[in-house]
Amino acid sequence: MTAVELIEKKRDGEALTANEIRWLIDSFTLGTVTDYQMAAITMAVFLNGLNAEELAVWTDAMMHSGDVLDFDRITKPKIDKHSTGGVGDKVSIPLVPMVAACGVAIPMISGRGLGHTGGTLDKLECIPGFTTDLDAGRFTSILEQYGLVMAGQSETLVPADRKLYALRDATGTVPSIPLIASSIMSKKLAEDLDGLVLDVKVGNGAFMKNETSARQLAETMIGIGSAHGTTTVAYLTCMNEPLGREVGNANEIVESIAVLRGEGPDDLTEITMVLAGEMLLLGGIDSSLEAARRRLAGVIESGAALDLFGQVIEAQGGNREVINDLSLLPSASHTFLLKAPTSGVVRSVHALAVGRAAMRLGAGRETKEDAIDPGAGITLHAKTGESVEAGAPLATLAFNDHDRVEGALALLKDAWEIGEAPTIQPLIIDRISA
Amino acid sequence: MTAVELIEKKRDGEALTANEIRWLIDSFTLGTVTDYQMAAITMAVFLNGLNAEELAVWTDAMMHSGDVLDFDRITKPKIDKHSTGGVGDKVSIPLVPMVAACGVAIPMISGRGLGHTGGTLDKLECIPGFTTDLDAGRFTSILEQYGLVMAGQSETLVPADRKLYALRDATGTVPSIPLIASSIMSKKLAEDLDGLVLDVKVGNGAFMKNETSARQLAETMIGIGSAHGTTTVAYLTCMNEPLGREVGNANEIVESIAVLRGEGPDDLTEITMVLAGEMLLLGGIDSSLEAARRRLAGVIESGAALDLFGQVIEAQGGNREVINDLSLLPSASHTFLLKAPTSGVVRSVHALAVGRAAMRLGAGRETKEDAIDPGAGITLHAKTGESVEAGAPLATLAFNDHDRVEGALALLKDAWEIGEAPTIQPLIIDRISA
Repeated sequence: MTAVELIEKKRDGEALTANEIRWLIDSFTLGTVTDYQMAAITMAVFLNGLNAEELAVWTDAMMHSGDVLDFDRITKPKIDKHSTGGVGDKVSIPLVPMVAACGVAIPMISGRGLGHTGGTLDKLECIPGFTTDLDAGRFTSILEQYGLVMAGQSETLVPADRKLYALRDATGTVPSIPLIASSIMSKKLAEDLDGLVLDVKVGNGAFMKNETSARQLAETMIGIGSAHGTTTVAYLTCMNEPLGREVGNANEIVESIAVLRGEGPDDLTEITMVLAGEMLLLGGIDSSLEAARRRLAGVIESGAALDLFGQVIEAQGGNREVINDLSLLPSASHTFLLKAPTSGVVRSVHALAVGRAAMRLGAGRETKEDAIDPGAGITLHAKTGESVEAGAPLATLAFNDHDRVEGALALLKDAWEIGEAPTIQPLIIDRISA
Repeated sequence: MTAVELIEKKRDGEALTANEIRWLIDSFTLGTVTDYQMAAITMAVFLNGLNAEELAVWTDAMMHSGDVLDFDRITKPKIDKHSTGGVGDKVSIPLVPMVAACGVAIPMISGRGLGHTGGTLDKLECIPGFTTDLDAGRFTSILEQYGLVMAGQSETLVPADRKLYALRDATGTVPSIPLIASSIMSKKLAEDLDGLVLDVKVGNGAFMKNETSARQLAETMIGIGSAHGTTTVAYLTCMNEPLGREVGNANEIVESIAVLRGEGPDDLTEITMVLAGEMLLLGGIDSSLEAARRRLAGVIESGAALDLFGQVIEAQGGNREVINDLSLLPSASHTFLLKAPTSGVVRSVHALAVGRAAMRLGAGRETKEDAIDPGAGITLHAKTGESVEAGAPLATLAFNDHDRVEGALALLKDAWEIGEAPTIQPLIIDRISA
């Protein structure tokens, strides 16, 4: 078998065999298939696709390119949740302790932010002392003791994906549904899960701009999950405006704690309840979404979820006092109040514009090498459907670097559409299962 | 402009602008566009194509990636001929002195053999002392003095093509008509030509297996020539059986000298006359193919063409006595006579099988790094349409390495089809011009 033979097959629209795919991924991981050969086959995959059988093997080969986690000692059901990313999407942070407080184990491995979307790791690292860099032993022992752990991906987990993603990023093959699906699923399936809930975002602030492609991605990931024997359920959710009212890193920890206190904004709370509820169903904790939602409301009301969040913060080296004293979080030295130019009802708040503006303020990374400013962010005072008077505050921009404000304001100039009352779009578009 | 943006455009089937293409080829030549990025865009070109405007600029940018020859001092018309390669295709060797003897200047830059097809340079280097490695000054002065020169490509001529070809070879993007056409034409147009004759081979021994793709390649190259202002004429010629009776390096020099003596086999002589005649038409030496053929027959009969070949051999460091004493050429220490298994008429001699068998004997290269054995080769005693008795010789295999014979014989086992008299296919299928 040679790389050129496999490139030629995929170039000509033929399906690769399981052996060929495993050889390709292994050889690429080892470096005996070169970057330029992998770039050629990746472009051929982009243009000619992978069928369901190829995709299942491709994902499995990626998953087995490094260590695979093994949680045999954990008797609780192991369920995780993954979001394809959006603006203000901090759902994982309140969701994980809520679900864990109900008896599900969540070995969550998250990523960093890039472009207009934030990353769970960056947000968690705003908590003083909190580390997401855990070795396998500490990862498992925290999971065992608390039923939850929130870490970054270790070097030895799915190395093929890290290498392939960097190559795709440099060769124009990122937005390919089979390649996105196998990248996400190889990392999630390496977590030794019993079930997985996917939040596939749709809209201007999401990677998938329309429902058709989002549905296709969801169905592709569900197919990979099924082939691997891991029950996978996907929600298509709207990402035309930011989720919640806070965008930024420290900002989003503040709002996550609010959800755990039962004081979160409606849209964020609702989506968290639905996705968390689905995890309880997958874990066999409850048999209806209503029962699951009652249980989740219970762990918020009792303070059990917030308390568990505090415990895991401490277990991961952080200062648990943050849950009671938000002033321990990083903050920005300056703020700017953006005001409504006219009176009316907010018809839309453009998620992509807000995400890009927050990135410009320092909350996100334009390139992987950029540092983030944990205190920078945007607080939204007016969201879709809310009435504003001319001159009333639309948003507060928090920043440490004055030079960044002008660019952020330019991006926000047309982010709010104000006029007649709009038709409110549903937050949760669909639930998809195998 | 970034490489990723250009990859994305071509991936999505859009046309690149002239500036984008020039930037891409220049940056790839410099190394600031990486091999893996070029591999991705090349696969996208393979699958999505290049339109005529893109192709003209792509070829021109390749051509200008290094030195471009300038023959202002040469007052004769400068015409070259290029073959896409076949088995036993030594046409260039007798053709160049024939055409030069008629008053056309031919700055011929040739290549080496790879796989089942031989290379003009390898054949010429069988002549003791002959060098094809000429610097620009010597190249031009030989051309000026004799009206012909036969050399290899210098490092500084079309470096983008050398780099891109190596990458295509390793990434499954060789058989792409726009990429083949631009590769050939960038090198030929760098020769500062007034006209170009292309011999596009069609058949099992050729790169193009069917007439449709050969015609498409021919038309694509003619389009590039026209865009550059260089009149280009293409012939589609049959390559289902070897051309002439000799396959190998020294073997083909012997047969080339036979053509120059007027003693060549019919098929080889005919194709040489037609292509040479076309060059005289393009050079304005004659106004009809009949007149050109008469002139060419004259320089053979008078010995002028053979004498000129001798002069240029000497000018390029070789022993011109070879034209009178073929024993000065390398030979093989052993021969094997392949005999007809049955009586009948030869219906076909499979060019690809003969080419591969000759390669196996040592006449060709399986990989670019292989050395060739200049004395190894195959002499065909029976060609299509000729009658043979069972036990009569079909071919003589000449070789120095006994270990290679078995493999060659296995390839030749079914190369001769013997039976009822066949319908003879035309050697020259079509002439195509702008």
